[in-house]
Amino acid sequence: MKLEEIRKLHQKKFRQEFGCFLIEGEHLVLELQRALPGDPRLNASEIYLTAEFAHWQTPLPVHRVSARQMAQLSETRSPQGIVAVVPLLPAAEISPATRALYLYEIQDPGNLGTILRTLAWFGGFRCLLSPNSVDVHNAKAVRATAGALFHVPIEADVPLETLPARFRRIAHLGLAGQSISTPGFRDFDCYVYGNEARGLPREALAGIRSVAFTIAGSGAIESLNVAASVNICQYELARART
Amino acid sequence: MKLEEIRKLHQKKFRQEFGCFLIEGEHLVLELQRALPGDPRLNASEIYLTAEFAHWQTPLPVHRVSARQMAQLSETRSPQGIVAVVPLLPAAEISPATRALYLYEIQDPGNLGTILRTLAWFGGFRCLLSPNSVDVHNAKAVRATAGALFHVPIEADVPLETLPARFRRIAHLGLAGQSISTPGFRDFDCYVYGNEARGLPREALAGIRSVAFTIAGSGAIESLNVAASVNICQYELARART
Repeated sequence: MKLEEIRKLHQKKFRQEFGCFLIEGEHLVLELQRALPGDPRLNASEIYLTAEFAHWQTPLPVHRVSARQMAQLSETRSPQGIVAVVPLLPAAEISPATRALYLYEIQDPGNLGTILRTLAWFGGFRCLLSPNSVDVHNAKAVRATAGALFHVPIEADVPLETLPARFRRIAHLGLAGQSISTPGFRDFDCYVYGNEARGLPREALAGIRSVAFTIAGSGAIESLNVAASVNICQYELARART
Repeated sequence: MKLEEIRKLHQKKFRQEFGCFLIEGEHLVLELQRALPGDPRLNASEIYLTAEFAHWQTPLPVHRVSARQMAQLSETRSPQGIVAVVPLLPAAEISPATRALYLYEIQDPGNLGTILRTLAWFGGFRCLLSPNSVDVHNAKAVRATAGALFHVPIEADVPLETLPARFRRIAHLGLAGQSISTPGFRDFDCYVYGNEARGLPREALAGIRSVAFTIAGSGAIESLNVAASVNICQYELARART
């Protein structure tokens, strides 16, 4: 791939046009390599590195670039000297028994990245994103996943109203409802979370049979961060499995 | 305060010189106002607003500024039209029974903000920060707290080695240790978390009697985000209280 093209991968429209995205830094490239056996389609990835990384061990094709070229590819102020171009892939086939997390119009790439990292940590869940959510291949989101995006099946542009056709039992998180500590919380196929500022608008949920749950708090502040809510609920669900 | 001075509050050295910090936007100013009864020292705060917010209800002193002046004060691209200058205060006196979270060299303002939001949500904890941690009055950190910093007692520049003199039972979180789901996890006065990249260096913990705990995961990725770990542990501790 030409360097001018790689640079354009910082923009969503070019990621879609070229069918690939960019990851930056040693840690993410290592995570990519660790994920190759699990999803051989990732072998279409290519690595670009500077002289500093000349001895990098990898089964993937490697291209040497100058420090100056690297600075042009990278979005960060102090580029780490290694990036990879990775194909955009439809979510790998997963066991139908895998449960789902559904994020409604999530906006913050850091939140999305943290959530994927938590899903990879505990395992057993796929991630569905509504239309108008932040792009998971956005550089900030990718960085925040710390490589987790290679370990979690992700589906984008899934309309909320399609959930009942796919999932029998749906729960959603909000400021009112049963406590997530009640055993009943464990019995769902799909867990729905709202946007950072607006939560889940009532009209969005209209016509969907879903049970409301909440994380009990002290009342000192209005709400928890959405990524914090997901972390806590995934822990609660993982705890129940053991 | 002069507008040129307020603008300088985006830098830590001027926050320390002037003894105050800046909060931006309607939501944070509302949270400040909600916190006034709990800490009357916050009444030394002052509000700056544009014509758009002319009818803002507040017991605090108000200064009108032009949209252009506001754009100079604000760090965000589309300023919301209302900011407040808030005094930097030593952590309010709290019950000695309040337990503590200790963050060792945390670097990411978003992580620190999320953690404070979670502490405010569940209550019952103060937050201690090691030297070389991100400044909690950094604009990004303040934004990420969503106002929680007015509800959590915070102490900065607390050396790790001073903990044993203050706390009888210390726990720390890491990649190995007992599961936080075991009842023993609840019995500590202070919970220690490490830096985003390096965790808790062994030498930092040398000489401190502390029990190691971990959040059991699937093994797909290396680690959880530190804010995610705190969220999960605070939920576990709050769950045990009820």
